[in-house]
Amino acid sequence: MREVRVFAPATVANVACGFDILGFALEQPGDTVRAGLSEGKEVKILSISGDSGRLPLDAAKNTAGVAVRHFLDHLGEERGIEIHLEKALPLGSGLGSSAASAVAAVVAANVLLGEPLSREELIPFTLEAERAACGAAHADNAAPAMLGGFVLIRGYDPPDLVRIPAPEALCCAVVHPHIEIRTEDARKILRREIPLEDAIVQWGNIGGLIAGLMKGDYSLIGRSMKDVIIEPVRSLLIPGFEEAKQAAMDAGALGCSISGSGPSIFALGNDRRKIEAAGQAMQAAFAALHIDSDLFVSAINNQGPTVLNSF
Amino acid sequence: MREVRVFAPATVANVACGFDILGFALEQPGDTVRAGLSEGKEVKILSISGDSGRLPLDAAKNTAGVAVRHFLDHLGEERGIEIHLEKALPLGSGLGSSAASAVAAVVAANVLLGEPLSREELIPFTLEAERAACGAAHADNAAPAMLGGFVLIRGYDPPDLVRIPAPEALCCAVVHPHIEIRTEDARKILRREIPLEDAIVQWGNIGGLIAGLMKGDYSLIGRSMKDVIIEPVRSLLIPGFEEAKQAAMDAGALGCSISGSGPSIFALGNDRRKIEAAGQAMQAAFAALHIDSDLFVSAINNQGPTVLNSF
Repeated sequence: MREVRVFAPATVANVACGFDILGFALEQPGDTVRAGLSEGKEVKILSISGDSGRLPLDAAKNTAGVAVRHFLDHLGEERGIEIHLEKALPLGSGLGSSAASAVAAVVAANVLLGEPLSREELIPFTLEAERAACGAAHADNAAPAMLGGFVLIRGYDPPDLVRIPAPEALCCAVVHPHIEIRTEDARKILRREIPLEDAIVQWGNIGGLIAGLMKGDYSLIGRSMKDVIIEPVRSLLIPGFEEAKQAAMDAGALGCSISGSGPSIFALGNDRRKIEAAGQAMQAAFAALHIDSDLFVSAINNQGPTVLNSF
Repeated sequence: MREVRVFAPATVANVACGFDILGFALEQPGDTVRAGLSEGKEVKILSISGDSGRLPLDAAKNTAGVAVRHFLDHLGEERGIEIHLEKALPLGSGLGSSAASAVAAVVAANVLLGEPLSREELIPFTLEAERAACGAAHADNAAPAMLGGFVLIRGYDPPDLVRIPAPEALCCAVVHPHIEIRTEDARKILRREIPLEDAIVQWGNIGGLIAGLMKGDYSLIGRSMKDVIIEPVRSLLIPGFEEAKQAAMDAGALGCSISGSGPSIFALGNDRRKIEAAGQAMQAAFAALHIDSDLFVSAINNQGPTVLNSF
């Protein structure tokens, strides 16, 4: 039976000032899906590794399964897909774990069927999976996981995605402290109304971040990575956040904020050694509070998922 | 006595989604300053034309005079400047009239003194003039009038200006209906608190507009020119706004919104004939309400003020 293996990357959503509209992909870590065609219309998840048994094998409850189901239904495909899911992404970490699995699975299924759709055309199926997983079809993880680089979600009706390749030297340190935040809680504590004055500051920074990325102006990227609306609230859920952020900035990061709804925090830089130091400094800040953490240091993934082999 | 004549352009601030952080310069109309050096430290405004006598000749109360005064003080200059101001910009129209005069005057003074400062370095003096004129040192007219193109004001502390040249085919129709709106009133009616949900829509559009301008993607520029926060409120002060906007869009404009705090409205396009038609359609919409108006159709000014002659 023909099989294909596909890797899809972790993603950092929000990127300081871009709440709900911006995300980018990392080179590492990420999830890998091995998939094959099968007789009958069913989508089956045959195995999951790396999740300590926390994810459901029921394809209707797993983002990888949901995305592929929507994809096959869209095509009117008579065959089914069997999936082996290798999780390397920590669950509930704010690194787009559910999106990475969905993207890897649907890209694998597309390859198995002779690539009837482009990668951009596959995104709606991953959004259905995101909706199933967290109740809302946010694209700020799934779109960068699928397309690579930074992706701006200009609007949702219909999804209007603007891909912005990362400038070459940009690199990232992500620290995942071993504490738990539920996405729902992270959303509930946000204010529903915000001061116009703060919104103006935020949209100056968003414009600056987009311009900085497109110009390759690292200083402008750094000056723009300021979130006066979401981070001051959500950081309350992450003990040690302020210390970790300060440590990253002191080590030479361009900017530092919460990845998605947390608890992971990320720092961007344009010097690999400095960003490694920033990562270690963030870990040390959490360690001082007796919080264990994982550190990922990575370039920005500008190409999206990788088809590892097809045999 | 050596004299210099400098033209500085009208500007459109806010640009739909970029309230307080974005503006661009027009080729026409604009104000012209003729200036010469004089003995004694005084800044004098010797004449003003085109203002129907509405502007003060007192240099301390006129943005051209205020900007030059701050400039000379900064340099510790012993000589004075005599200014003739030729207004071609309608006052209180939302087209950056006070900024254009200040920019033309300070650029002229800089030329007279042998250009000790760069144009970017002259901006703070024009902001002092804006502060004197309207109580706040907004840069969204003065910065594009000085630098040309689009200018993003990333932040104010200190002013962080990001210049974004306009893509080549971009052009603009501005209609100035003969009604009066005081900038103060236009600011007072805004809500001080806004829904987070609306702010998210707005920052997606700002990111999209910046990306569209930098990519030269006219469709993206058009899709991003949506203001869900300021325009719905301020447009209430402009009778006929909705009809004029609809007429501009029907005529093929990419987008249409209020220029600055109004009452002028502008439409952007990438086809000169369509944007001329959009301008005429907007005028017709106002005419239907018995409101007279002026129409300006112009390319985007990508170079800033012009030194017309120096003799």
